[in-house]
Amino acid sequence: MREMKELRIGMMGYGFMGRTHSNAYKRLTDFFPVHHKPVLKAVCARNAEKAQAFADNWGYERVETDWRKVVEAPDIDLIDIGTPNDTHYEMALAAAKNGKMVCCEKPLALSVAQAEEMTKAVEDAGVPNMVWFNYRRVPAIALAKQVVDEGRIGRAFHYRATYLQDWTIATDVPQGGAGLWRLDSDVAGSGVTGDLLAHSIDTAMWLNGPITRVVAKTETFVKERVHAVTGKVQPVGIDDACMFLAEFANGSMGTFESTRYARGRKNFNTFELNGADGSLYFDLEEPEYLQYFEYLQKQSGKKLESHLTGWRKIHVTNSEHPYMNRYWVPGTCIGYEHTFLNALADFVMGIESGKPTEPTFRTALQTQKVCDAVLDSARSGSWKETGV
Amino acid sequence: MREMKELRIGMMGYGFMGRTHSNAYKRLTDFFPVHHKPVLKAVCARNAEKAQAFADNWGYERVETDWRKVVEAPDIDLIDIGTPNDTHYEMALAAAKNGKMVCCEKPLALSVAQAEEMTKAVEDAGVPNMVWFNYRRVPAIALAKQVVDEGRIGRAFHYRATYLQDWTIATDVPQGGAGLWRLDSDVAGSGVTGDLLAHSIDTAMWLNGPITRVVAKTETFVKERVHAVTGKVQPVGIDDACMFLAEFANGSMGTFESTRYARGRKNFNTFELNGADGSLYFDLEEPEYLQYFEYLQKQSGKKLESHLTGWRKIHVTNSEHPYMNRYWVPGTCIGYEHTFLNALADFVMGIESGKPTEPTFRTALQTQKVCDAVLDSARSGSWKETGV
Amino acid sequence: MREMKELRIGMMGYGFMGRTHSNAYKRLTDFFPVHHKPVLKAVCARNAEKAQAFADNWGYERVETDWRKVVEAPDIDLIDIGTPNDTHYEMALAAAKNGKMVCCEKPLALSVAQAEEMTKAVEDAGVPNMVWFNYRRVPAIALAKQVVDEGRIGRAFHYRATYLQDWTIATDVPQGGAGLWRLDSDVAGSGVTGDLLAHSIDTAMWLNGPITRVVAKTETFVKERVHAVTGKVQPVGIDDACMFLAEFANGSMGTFESTRYARGRKNFNTFELNGADGSLYFDLEEPEYLQYFEYLQKQSGKKLESHLTGWRKIHVTNSEHPYMNRYWVPGTCIGYEHTFLNALADFVMGIESGKPTEPTFRTALQTQKVCDAVLDSARSGSWKETGV
Amino acid sequence: MREMKELRIGMMGYGFMGRTHSNAYKRLTDFFPVHHKPVLKAVCARNAEKAQAFADNWGYERVETDWRKVVEAPDIDLIDIGTPNDTHYEMALAAAKNGKMVCCEKPLALSVAQAEEMTKAVEDAGVPNMVWFNYRRVPAIALAKQVVDEGRIGRAFHYRATYLQDWTIATDVPQGGAGLWRLDSDVAGSGVTGDLLAHSIDTAMWLNGPITRVVAKTETFVKERVHAVTGKVQPVGIDDACMFLAEFANGSMGTFESTRYARGRKNFNTFELNGADGSLYFDLEEPEYLQYFEYLQKQSGKKLESHLTGWRKIHVTNSEHPYMNRYWVPGTCIGYEHTFLNALADFVMGIESGKPTEPTFRTALQTQKVCDAVLDSARSGSWKETGV
Repeated sequence: MREMKELRIGMMGYGFMGRTHSNAYKRLTDFFPVHHKPVLKAVCARNAEKAQAFADNWGYERVETDWRKVVEAPDIDLIDIGTPNDTHYEMALAAAKNGKMVCCEKPLALSVAQAEEMTKAVEDAGVPNMVWFNYRRVPAIALAKQVVDEGRIGRAFHYRATYLQDWTIATDVPQGGAGLWRLDSDVAGSGVTGDLLAHSIDTAMWLNGPITRVVAKTETFVKERVHAVTGKVQPVGIDDACMFLAEFANGSMGTFESTRYARGRKNFNTFELNGADGSLYFDLEEPEYLQYFEYLQKQSGKKLESHLTGWRKIHVTNSEHPYMNRYWVPGTCIGYEHTFLNALADFVMGIESGKPTEPTFRTALQTQKVCDAVLDSARSGSWKETGV
Repeated sequence: MREMKELRIGMMGYGFMGRTHSNAYKRLTDFFPVHHKPVLKAVCARNAEKAQAFADNWGYERVETDWRKVVEAPDIDLIDIGTPNDTHYEMALAAAKNGKMVCCEKPLALSVAQAEEMTKAVEDAGVPNMVWFNYRRVPAIALAKQVVDEGRIGRAFHYRATYLQDWTIATDVPQGGAGLWRLDSDVAGSGVTGDLLAHSIDTAMWLNGPITRVVAKTETFVKERVHAVTGKVQPVGIDDACMFLAEFANGSMGTFESTRYARGRKNFNTFELNGADGSLYFDLEEPEYLQYFEYLQKQSGKKLESHLTGWRKIHVTNSEHPYMNRYWVPGTCIGYEHTFLNALADFVMGIESGKPTEPTFRTALQTQKVCDAVLDSARSGSWKETGV
Repeated sequence: MREMKELRIGMMGYGFMGRTHSNAYKRLTDFFPVHHKPVLKAVCARNAEKAQAFADNWGYERVETDWRKVVEAPDIDLIDIGTPNDTHYEMALAAAKNGKMVCCEKPLALSVAQAEEMTKAVEDAGVPNMVWFNYRRVPAIALAKQVVDEGRIGRAFHYRATYLQDWTIATDVPQGGAGLWRLDSDVAGSGVTGDLLAHSIDTAMWLNGPITRVVAKTETFVKERVHAVTGKVQPVGIDDACMFLAEFANGSMGTFESTRYARGRKNFNTFELNGADGSLYFDLEEPEYLQYFEYLQKQSGKKLESHLTGWRKIHVTNSEHPYMNRYWVPGTCIGYEHTFLNALADFVMGIESGKPTEPTFRTALQTQKVCDAVLDSARSGSWKETGV
Repeated sequence: MREMKELRIGMMGYGFMGRTHSNAYKRLTDFFPVHHKPVLKAVCARNAEKAQAFADNWGYERVETDWRKVVEAPDIDLIDIGTPNDTHYEMALAAAKNGKMVCCEKPLALSVAQAEEMTKAVEDAGVPNMVWFNYRRVPAIALAKQVVDEGRIGRAFHYRATYLQDWTIATDVPQGGAGLWRLDSDVAGSGVTGDLLAHSIDTAMWLNGPITRVVAKTETFVKERVHAVTGKVQPVGIDDACMFLAEFANGSMGTFESTRYARGRKNFNTFELNGADGSLYFDLEEPEYLQYFEYLQKQSGKKLESHLTGWRKIHVTNSEHPYMNRYWVPGTCIGYEHTFLNALADFVMGIESGKPTEPTFRTALQTQKVCDAVLDSARSGSWKETGV
């Protein structure tokens, strides 16, 4: 029987991300041969009753309503920040100060300034840290990274990404409150830029390197919505949609677009990378596939025979594919939740090996810089340097 | 906090199905508001060491090597039979005799005669029973059933199903032993017919009613393989591939085919149903989709406008879709393993409501009849009545 | 300027096939560097008025109502038989007897006996002859043949074909007459078997070799229809649907199905070939694609890297692809009508080179044998040898 | 027999567009019940020998090398300008001055100034005029327009278009000369902006109304190429790629991108329109499909049932679909060349009815304005008003 250390979790928030993370902690040792067993020590939220129901469901030992008690608790090793965006900063600083590991939901912060301070805090404290850009752990996206790293794409020319949803078209969707804080700019900081494009940017820079300049436009299609907390009709402060052009450091061009107003697109997080030697395409609505166009056939060292070229749908469920040897049999799919489980496993293996797991706070800071430049550009109407 | 009863599990086998079922037991209460909490009491297998490793991984309280001790144990409520096919009969009879609930992997038995006896045993004992035809719990397949039940397909003309894989093409794959007993006819009973077509037949009869007559052909492409246990080259007794034509009681025609020699098809379990008012198509390799061709538009009561007809890919991830309200958000997929979790949840809700959960042993007996008629027909070369 | 001989056409019939063939004759020299220029001498049909309108539209020099005058006309080189099936036999015999080249629509004949006599007639007369199995000239299907011939598929295990349509579901579609003779068994000989499965069988044997044994079932879903000529409700004699299992001479297994009752399938002529080294899939509803799963990578001589395997959609519009260098630029599609044009070009190049163009009457006779065996088997319910 | 007038054609250029247009003229009366029969009077090009070969192939009565002789010829009714972009201006002015109808290839001109003058010329002369934005006549795109006009999309939020190709990645492709003038900025005016984005913009404004503001970036990936005429390595002046953000007058947002460096994309001309009530998607590489997401079901007046929503692939081959009743049978595709034939038929029907056929020169002028604003913005780096 493998020896196990405890990894004692303090979970901030019981919302959507509270669920996905809790599930990951509970499943970790079932699937991964790690030597840390997560223990669900405490969940923290302002609403004690709901937090207790959550704790009962998932098996947390206790409930706290004061987050400072959690970050200071001696029986907790890792602070997981799954609360709304406006809380990340303070919690992360306090967690680092108390020497806790920190895993934080994305976007890391409300601003580059915050993100820089947070990064400094975890680095000064020397605590393992990660930001939950879980889509890096979709096996097909991890495979895309592998294909790039194997040198199969060649000189990059184009990168294009979309992240399209359609759930806020109805004007009677309220803003704010536990379920809809993502529509409240005071809490979320931004709309689709921080919520969705942050994912697209993280993936893009992972696969294709730094984004150096951007020009953007945002739009708020529904100008006023009832606020769920106040009950009043209030102006909507978030960006409902955002599109931008980008320059990458490697000389390639990028287009990015995100919205919650693309009727029929539910979680249409796509990217395409075009290089001289090959291309890749991914769509999160069919996450089991990576599409690959092979032009230079590395195995033979030749251009693929012209009459046989085509986009190949790789069903990313072979045991040779990233993460898939931990699960079932070839041809069977895993789900959305496993991206968190895979990320957690990588994080824990990082603790065990001493090698930091990406994306760290420092890496997420780069994404934050791009997000801020995008919003800046949208306000000013001109190209902005990202500083990445 | 909801009141919980224990549901104490005795798991037979630690193989692939041992894993999928154990996972389902552990996750049940995380996702479903049931009032039974599975407790993993015992896992049983002949190899004590491997069973112990499995128990350690998944959290079983004890290991047994004599299955009779498990079916007789007073601290066990439910016997889950995940062992190779040749063991189902004896175990199920003993479990029923001891008043245990029984959940059995498919195919239920090696023959109709066995299946009839097993059905009688659980019915005489009055114990809840289910066969793990887990694909009924793929949300898209459950949605197909809903669409049929809503009367959207009309008079059925055609049903066609394939279940194609490609993992036994290499002639040096051995037969027999823990990993490959499915290739050993003594243990498996049959090849693709019991392993894969049983799924196709179960789904077909669920959606389109009884199959009454069949004509079939089977083939064994690789005639000899090393046996993993004996180390000797031995004749292969299973059917590597099987295809058959079918008549349904409702007058529609069916084609069925299964193989493990379809290069490039990994888990290509597909069906298509064509009716006068609409059609459905499903492919397990992209399990998040159900394809639907609507001809008669029920909401309007009219034929859909001709210029707008087309096959619609329904991304079966809305909260209105079967099972999906238990999981994440619209647009996010669940995985293969959730089909077992959903099945278990249905079974437990069946216990709680007193309404038997399909497919029961009696229902699986019907599938067994078709499988036997298929193999009979393949031997004789003539059409066979199924007796269903 | 290239030297041109005239190729003087006598066209039998002005229906759907009369149009597709006439179009091919008129476009031949625009696209192909052949040395024969078709001249539209005469079109023949019983309805003089309609034939005249057709002649005016397409530019035929004269109209005949007695087909014997056409086959005997000294100013005609090639008799093209595009009339209903029951006329092929007599016309082909007479054309051969008069030393004319003969291009005949499929199915070649109403029976093997007729087809044998017709084959003997054209061979005895030594006249160039072809049957219009035009789908061989879909570039993607021609590419499939090329891939097979290049040895990329390896030992064949499975072949499956469907030809599904949905245009006769309505019970008020009449049978018989100029537009609907395909539903009248006296004229058509059979239903989907001769009309659609003949195509599937021709393609299958071209790609995968002879079909040696079959077992089939046919169905007539609508038992009676008004006859367009008599105005009376009469029994329907054709097969509305036909499905059969097949054995190929190379040891592979086949499934075939055709119907006009598959709601949502308009011209769903598909095939899939699975071999040890690769697989192919085609669907006529997206004719610009051939799907290819490469397992053995010939260029490198190795198995394709496991993490890169997948079904590849080859957009068959490169200049390297069959026929495509005659048309536009890569990425642009040709249409249904070009399959006839390509076939005609091949036929004319056959005349010019002296090498017979496939499929000849003799080749089509083999397809006729399979069709007849299929219908025989459907009547008797037992496996039939095809004699191919 | 329908009465026919002659429509006497003077064709400028024998290149790719010379072929597509000539084919259209020759096929017109075969498929469309118009009352004008094109007569191929003259083809004009500087290379007399090649022009003669072209004339022989397609059946032009004579060859001219001085284009002024053609525009002044009394036996010519319609001047068709298929020559490189830098010739359009002078030829169109002269044609109009001589009272000829003018059909001009896109882009209309090298600049807005030219386009305005050309528009004035044809309007002052009162001659029928059209620009060959042939993709409006892809049946699926025409269907998209119909769906929009039927009010099925509702308030528009997003429009996104790509036009991706990959044929200039190799650095040894020369620029200039008969085959590659599109890479020579002196002749082409611009690169992908005029060649490909002009199509995307024409379609976008047809479907979604005026584009009012843009911000763009262009790139020239290969900075120098051998010039085919001079034989020297010369700087490349065209834009190899262009991407821009757009604002539409209706308040929706647009992204556009075009390149010839997207490995694996051959003619990937796509658009997507997202509205409150429905969405549309099209891809020219599978031109037979229009994808439609229906949210508001007009026939019933209700939101489509939630469990049945999905993207529908409409196979645009029904007789109810635009143009398709002129061709074959449902389920059969037409090809690239038919877009020109359909456009010509519309133009001729416009002559016969007296109603101008879109897009006229005036409409194409609007597209030119957007193209110019895009190139302006790419130079300046700032948003530009289009003036449309």
